[in-house]
Amino acid sequence: MNTHIWLYAGLIGGALSILAALVTYKNVLKYDAGSARAQEIAGWIRAGASTYLKLLYKTLIALAIILGIILAIVFSGVEKQNHGLLTAGAFAFGALCSALAGWLGMKVAVEANVRTAVACKEGVAEGFTVAFKAGSVMGLAMVGVAVFGMSLLYLIWKDVEIILGFSFGASLLALLAKAGGGIYTKTADIAADLVGKVEVGIPEDDPRNPAVIADNVGDNVGDVAGMGADIFDSYVAAVVAAMLLGSSFYAQGLTGFQYVILPLLICVIGIVSTFIGLPLVRVGKDGKPGRALNLGTVITCIVFIVLATIFFAIVNAAAGGDPAKSLNWGALISTITGLLIGVVIGFTTDYFTNDDYKPVRRTAKISGSGTGLTIITGFSYGLISIAPAILGIVAATITSYFVSQAFGMPGIYGIGVAAVGMLSLTGIIVSNDAYGPIVDNAKGIAEMSGMPHDVVERADTLDSAGNTAKAITKGFSISAAALTVLAMFAAYCESITQYSGKDLQLDLMDPLVLSGVLLGCIIPALFSAELMLAVTKNAFTMIEEIRRQFKAEPGILKGTVLPDYTQCVAIASSGALKSLIGPAFLAIVCPLLVGFILGPGALGGFLGGSIFTGVVFALLMSNAGGLWDNGKKYIEAGNFGGSGSEAHKAAVVGDTVGDPFKDTAGPSLNTLITVMSLVASLFAPLIARYHIFG
Amino acid sequence: MNTHIWLYAGLIGGALSILAALVTYKNVLKYDAGSARAQEIAGWIRAGASTYLKLLYKTLIALAIILGIILAIVFSGVEKQNHGLLTAGAFAFGALCSALAGWLGMKVAVEANVRTAVACKEGVAEGFTVAFKAGSVMGLAMVGVAVFGMSLLYLIWKDVEIILGFSFGASLLALLAKAGGGIYTKTADIAADLVGKVEVGIPEDDPRNPAVIADNVGDNVGDVAGMGADIFDSYVAAVVAAMLLGSSFYAQGLTGFQYVILPLLICVIGIVSTFIGLPLVRVGKDGKPGRALNLGTVITCIVFIVLATIFFAIVNAAAGGDPAKSLNWGALISTITGLLIGVVIGFTTDYFTNDDYKPVRRTAKISGSGTGLTIITGFSYGLISIAPAILGIVAATITSYFVSQAFGMPGIYGIGVAAVGMLSLTGIIVSNDAYGPIVDNAKGIAEMSGMPHDVVERADTLDSAGNTAKAITKGFSISAAALTVLAMFAAYCESITQYSGKDLQLDLMDPLVLSGVLLGCIIPALFSAELMLAVTKNAFTMIEEIRRQFKAEPGILKGTVLPDYTQCVAIASSGALKSLIGPAFLAIVCPLLVGFILGPGALGGFLGGSIFTGVVFALLMSNAGGLWDNGKKYIEAGNFGGSGSEAHKAAVVGDTVGDPFKDTAGPSLNTLITVMSLVASLFAPLIARYHIFG
Repeated sequence: MNTHIWLYAGLIGGALSILAALVTYKNVLKYDAGSARAQEIAGWIRAGASTYLKLLYKTLIALAIILGIILAIVFSGVEKQNHGLLTAGAFAFGALCSALAGWLGMKVAVEANVRTAVACKEGVAEGFTVAFKAGSVMGLAMVGVAVFGMSLLYLIWKDVEIILGFSFGASLLALLAKAGGGIYTKTADIAADLVGKVEVGIPEDDPRNPAVIADNVGDNVGDVAGMGADIFDSYVAAVVAAMLLGSSFYAQGLTGFQYVILPLLICVIGIVSTFIGLPLVRVGKDGKPGRALNLGTVITCIVFIVLATIFFAIVNAAAGGDPAKSLNWGALISTITGLLIGVVIGFTTDYFTNDDYKPVRRTAKISGSGTGLTIITGFSYGLISIAPAILGIVAATITSYFVSQAFGMPGIYGIGVAAVGMLSLTGIIVSNDAYGPIVDNAKGIAEMSGMPHDVVERADTLDSAGNTAKAITKGFSISAAALTVLAMFAAYCESITQYSGKDLQLDLMDPLVLSGVLLGCIIPALFSAELMLAVTKNAFTMIEEIRRQFKAEPGILKGTVLPDYTQCVAIASSGALKSLIGPAFLAIVCPLLVGFILGPGALGGFLGGSIFTGVVFALLMSNAGGLWDNGKKYIEAGNFGGSGSEAHKAAVVGDTVGDPFKDTAGPSLNTLITVMSLVASLFAPLIARYHIFG
Repeated sequence: MNTHIWLYAGLIGGALSILAALVTYKNVLKYDAGSARAQEIAGWIRAGASTYLKLLYKTLIALAIILGIILAIVFSGVEKQNHGLLTAGAFAFGALCSALAGWLGMKVAVEANVRTAVACKEGVAEGFTVAFKAGSVMGLAMVGVAVFGMSLLYLIWKDVEIILGFSFGASLLALLAKAGGGIYTKTADIAADLVGKVEVGIPEDDPRNPAVIADNVGDNVGDVAGMGADIFDSYVAAVVAAMLLGSSFYAQGLTGFQYVILPLLICVIGIVSTFIGLPLVRVGKDGKPGRALNLGTVITCIVFIVLATIFFAIVNAAAGGDPAKSLNWGALISTITGLLIGVVIGFTTDYFTNDDYKPVRRTAKISGSGTGLTIITGFSYGLISIAPAILGIVAATITSYFVSQAFGMPGIYGIGVAAVGMLSLTGIIVSNDAYGPIVDNAKGIAEMSGMPHDVVERADTLDSAGNTAKAITKGFSISAAALTVLAMFAAYCESITQYSGKDLQLDLMDPLVLSGVLLGCIIPALFSAELMLAVTKNAFTMIEEIRRQFKAEPGILKGTVLPDYTQCVAIASSGALKSLIGPAFLAIVCPLLVGFILGPGALGGFLGGSIFTGVVFALLMSNAGGLWDNGKKYIEAGNFGGSGSEAHKAAVVGDTVGDPFKDTAGPSLNTLITVMSLVASLFAPLIARYHIFG
């Protein structure tokens, strides 16, 4: 197998994906942008989103320069030529790529929202097409940039550790984008609801509410840019972890060289499958958008399995039995296992958050007896929802490990490619996910610009499908992140073993490892708490501002004077950015402290502990939050007393609690554990040599 | 060191403690039981509590017989004479001892509540004396029964594995008593509040509320019998784990025989210290009950340290340098480390739940802006509260391990005695804790029987102190349980190594161990969810019943007709018992399934995983619950608008959510992880030989 050819495949596949994203983007811009009023509202959202992103990226550039310099200095201590500079450069490149993909996604989202609303005038199918096309810009751009970037770096330097720097850059940006966006969106959402809906009694998305633009901006910065960056980082990290394992086992003579680049090839197969799957996602006359989204995923999944099998068969036929050139079938089975289990986990998430099933219905029903019971019941189902996802992760781990071993390949490598397999559909998954906030915004614009009732209703139909897609994406992305960090965790151990010259044993009976695990367990809890307290604190400030505006200018509520939207946008932006310091510290500094003080064993345990509680809290918060949200919607649909009933009031509180659970803390936890495991792997060469205990 | 002499010390110490409990019991009964009306109300509570306990114990006897037979059959397979029968017998004996201690505690609590109320007529100090004396009956009985039982068993059979059966019996009973009591008490509490306070607007503890007696019974069965059984089981398990480690290391020639019984001796020193400390707990004229309770704990702690040091010095002087007779100073330092860290953790819990500090105040303040924010803020502080306790556990683990090693003793044994040290003050801790529900009931009786306002106020002063004591006890007992299960976890590994003949490595990189950990992480979540869903389900039933009574008989609300208290008592009792099946299954069957299917390594990981998330959730739930409770009280004291304000309504919801968190799920988790680790250790000889994978 000629390495270069395959890496060029990565470059070409990545480039094609980026190209497709750009073409689709142009395509979306051609749709009708609607009336002046609609365009004005969309303009406010666009301006608010740009303001925040500029502020965010400005902060990030400063942070990246500082960290880049530190990396350059620290890693010049490693005995590889220019290692410090290269790592720093790759880090900056990774951050840039992630930012680029997020920015493009945002850009198209804020253009597509108004166009989707306008297209809804013609019908659900038309609105769906615009929104989904726009979503797929994000999906295509993301996988394209990732695969192109990694292939390029590896083609030039042939050193996976350089790509580790790339991955760290992407993840760090993702962490800040996701956490910052999550704080932003929920600050605005909660403040807008509490004053608007509860205190003054104006509907959601009412233009009289000073926080309404901040709320809509939040959907974009939190759900498009943030969520996209989140999956981007898992995607890159999964590939890097598998490549690291491949190269470590290659160095030990356990696998052929082809396994180092196999993860990139799986990505390319994923890109091709996405090209085939995307055009098939469409809604017929009176079709169901939710079904279309799910069907697209399933079809892409099947296409992927067929293509991957054909690819393995061709390579192996061409290799003619030469083990140095052929691909191990165990790797294929692991890849497919990861993929299938990812899809299954995604759909089980649906059970806990879809109002067709018991958890949402029972929570909605009990809401009539008191708000406390709503919270307890939803929280309890959130706790239960942890089980199926973790069982899936365990099944994927055990299957891929032992199957790979049975085929004579290191079992850990099987876990690595299972993670890549699970993420190989990232293109379509992100497309589905980015669709959500676009239609959410479309609904808002339709309402605010006074479009006819049936248009708003169609936009609402699109929005419901978006919520289900979002729940599935979250279950999927948390599980994928879990498998990825398990692979990264193995890569860390391999790296420590390689640099320290002795096997790293992570025996739970070793008090340092055990202490590491216990300390690691704390981090996701503290991280979630910091993000949520930031939301309540900023929401409190924004609530005061909204009340101030209503009081200072009575014309606002009468609808004769426009509120000052920029104040709320500014509070959300600066509040979110300021709140990122603590979480960033936890993610970067804590692993280094544990590693350099308590040693590599404790750091291994620490990563383990953070994965354990990180996955548990991520699933709990995302699912409980989704459940409360849909419980409220179920009551609003006329069940158990409908809007305005006691049950509804209780369900609204559940939804408010669920907001930062599902959109701030929960999904940021994936990124937290990814960043921590990348920090550990990146610094492994240094920690292996310099540490106080252990 | 003559073993027999020391074991007789255990027998005598235990017996004296039991005797002291009985004398104090008689003493409490001498106090004035008040007016006919007060006695009537106390009589209802007493009857309700007896009904439930009888029902509970009847169920438990059936379960114990079945499990006993299973144990007898299964363990007849182990190559020790009569091992099956002895294990089964010890199991039954352990369950009996735990039941006895719980029953005695309950018995005195339901007598002391009315007497405390009456004594409050004279003053706070008088009321305090009655309540604390009654509480100490529970404390003394518990440690007495435990130490006497274990010493007796060891004196007769000289086999720690038999005591393991005793510990399993005690823990299983504790699990059911705690979980059942927790479901009972919160079912009644929530139902009484939601209909009484919220719907019809009658005050708490109003005799017109049909659930009021069930609520008061709940305080006794949940907080006295349940909490007592919980600490009892940690206490026994800690001693057994340390004894197991001691005997395993003795068999390997790593320690002298004296280390096998040292844990029992530490308990005896603890008993003596408690004898000295208890009489010093008193409140002067206008003194503060909270301060008195804390001071008692601190003094007992100091007495323990002095006595233990003297004991070590005397034994070592007598040994004259003979290592087979002397005690290692490392063991003393570990013991004291455990004790001090236990106390420190207890007091840090206070920070998160006391209204003198930021967490409670900020949560109370933000309640004015919406119920959702109350929940998010309290939950976030609950997440943060995990950190100090876990840091304490890590500090205790690392210190005791490395200090012991530095003194030439196996480090793991140091962790074992640190756990025993932490629990050596169980006598006084349980006394403080049992004081809480007694004064809570006293307040209720004072109100219901129409005692003068200043008497009710005095009872309220006592009650506030009880809440703080409760918070401290919970932090303490969770941490102690964590350290205990870590020691038990080590004992399990030693046992597997011994029976399988090869070292058990719990390497996190082993996919079976890792899968075990991930599976273990699920259990505490599922367990908590089951308990909380049981509460909401039963509360729902009881709410319907209360509404039915109010509707069927209008005279109830007018105060002319007494409601039918027994219906609510029956709903709470049978609901709680039925809900125990699932949790018991999780605790007993899951570890066995993992062990026999995935093997001893996976089971080790499984225990680890359950400890990690178990401790995290226990701390989160207990502390967040305590915080919400005191946040509500802080507002009721007149802050942020006081009773009836929007802030108060939000805080009441927080309290309702916190109820099952802090009194049902949170504190039951200790017992869950203890039972699981005991099941694993008990079945280790079988699992070591028979398992499918690994």
